[in-house]
Amino acid sequence: MERPYRGVWPVVPTVFTDEGDLDLEGQKRVLDCMVDQGSDGLCILANYSEQFLLSDEERETLARLCLEHVAGRVPVIVTASHFSTRIVVERCRRAASLGGSMVMLMPPYHGAALKGTQEQTREQFARAAQAGLPIMVQDAPLSGVELGVPFLSRLAREIDEVGYFKIETPQTASKLRALIAAGGEAIEGPFDGEEAITLLADLDAGATGTMPSALVPDLLKPIVAAHRAGDRDEAAAAYARVLPLINYENRQAGLRACKAAMQAGGVIRSDHVRAPLAPLAPGVRAGLMEHLRTLDPVVLRWGR
Amino acid sequence: MERPYRGVWPVVPTVFTDEGDLDLEGQKRVLDCMVDQGSDGLCILANYSEQFLLSDEERETLARLCLEHVAGRVPVIVTASHFSTRIVVERCRRAASLGGSMVMLMPPYHGAALKGTQEQTREQFARAAQAGLPIMVQDAPLSGVELGVPFLSRLAREIDEVGYFKIETPQTASKLRALIAAGGEAIEGPFDGEEAITLLADLDAGATGTMPSALVPDLLKPIVAAHRAGDRDEAAAAYARVLPLINYENRQAGLRACKAAMQAGGVIRSDHVRAPLAPLAPGVRAGLMEHLRTLDPVVLRWGR
Repeated sequence: MERPYRGVWPVVPTVFTDEGDLDLEGQKRVLDCMVDQGSDGLCILANYSEQFLLSDEERETLARLCLEHVAGRVPVIVTASHFSTRIVVERCRRAASLGGSMVMLMPPYHGAALKGTQEQTREQFARAAQAGLPIMVQDAPLSGVELGVPFLSRLAREIDEVGYFKIETPQTASKLRALIAAGGEAIEGPFDGEEAITLLADLDAGATGTMPSALVPDLLKPIVAAHRAGDRDEAAAAYARVLPLINYENRQAGLRACKAAMQAGGVIRSDHVRAPLAPLAPGVRAGLMEHLRTLDPVVLRWGR
Repeated sequence: MERPYRGVWPVVPTVFTDEGDLDLEGQKRVLDCMVDQGSDGLCILANYSEQFLLSDEERETLARLCLEHVAGRVPVIVTASHFSTRIVVERCRRAASLGGSMVMLMPPYHGAALKGTQEQTREQFARAAQAGLPIMVQDAPLSGVELGVPFLSRLAREIDEVGYFKIETPQTASKLRALIAAGGEAIEGPFDGEEAITLLADLDAGATGTMPSALVPDLLKPIVAAHRAGDRDEAAAAYARVLPLINYENRQAGLRACKAAMQAGGVIRSDHVRAPLAPLAPGVRAGLMEHLRTLDPVVLRWGR
């Protein structure tokens, strides 16, 4: 795939057994299922991959397995965020050596109180850039760090590798529009995230890609394609069809939705999430399945 | 040392070279310097140990080195906090197998938004308790989790291993007093933290121990001893003498103060802190040294 990267780049969930161990065979099936749905690229070790519940050793195991198994069928973004600049740099180098196509970084944060200043964030990203991979900046509420448009566009102008932005804050569309206006050609890939819940508004604002969950990339592809082809009515109609499901995912189930769907569709054996995250409540699972069956996505048929 | 543990239990800083690598020889000197000052116990891998800037492998290296080098001279608390219950349990088991005397846990948290519920926190601590070590609950603003007195006292009553509490939130003294009243004998060790900046009020409220930085444990010991012996006037006078230094540490320098003092005193070669933390500004260092020289603490003489 040639740059600029665009399209649908879902986050790869991390697959566990019922006992909470990594399920590496299941992990491969997840990757195949996501590639089979036409994903333009994948992102591993992100928050919807439960990255905050993995040991360093497990991260390494997963990065290696995913990149070897995808084997260039699609480009892969490797999430490398950490409070420590040293660890970020090591993760970026490792991603490059394993064949990753890009790294994704949140600004440095730890807990509720430790947040990198703008200067510390810029310095961390500049050092990460020395690994040679393009960088996607993840602008998400989880970090607790506010990344203003002037700062983001300065990052894009001052650090060649910083060209992709995954914006998933309130009013993402307005922020994307402002970022594109401020950063110009330095904004190589303005993406949204957050399960693509505001995809239509974000595409209207100039987003060229989206990083949703792995729940229904097959149903998001046509929205992006129609919008790009100038058929906004079709894009809007397709978005309206899938929105009740995405809304339910985003507001009721979170990262558990994709795992539940993959288990129901025979992609993986267990939809286990690691404690302290709680399993999906039966009523929420039922509501999710009702939404899914209406849309008949690939995920429900892939393993059957 | 017999239980209940009490007294001065400073946090062990993690020593780096100027290049940011672990300095294991310097680490041993830090431990010796802290033991020589009469520390009743030590705590490793805490926030003032820059735990949020260490890899899993470095944590293991440090835990092993510290416990082997202290070799039972004083008891050692091993910090085991992580969002993942599975990782917390592994860290607690490892601490027990290496000879740690206690583990310290914050409630599960990640970033600004992910926080364990009370039930999830209780479940994590109950599973951690299966490693068999006493647990100190760290109640610090960094987690972003509010731990009310009713919940803390319930933890102490319901989980035998939970008996120690390091309270370092605003108005720690009032919280300690309420916790002791609510928890009774289940509160085996009410401690304060935060550089012991409110030590006198906390001792008045019933604290039996303090977990400060490693800056001046030799100057904190007499405060705790005098207070325990019933000589509150002497305790108050000693506290008043050291408070300008602690206030300066707490408000101007943070975890860098102890490292700067240890470097000045020949304990360690470098006071490096890892990025994105910034080095101590020259003016702040000068102010710190002025306060330190007035008090002539062991740390300034130990390595000279």
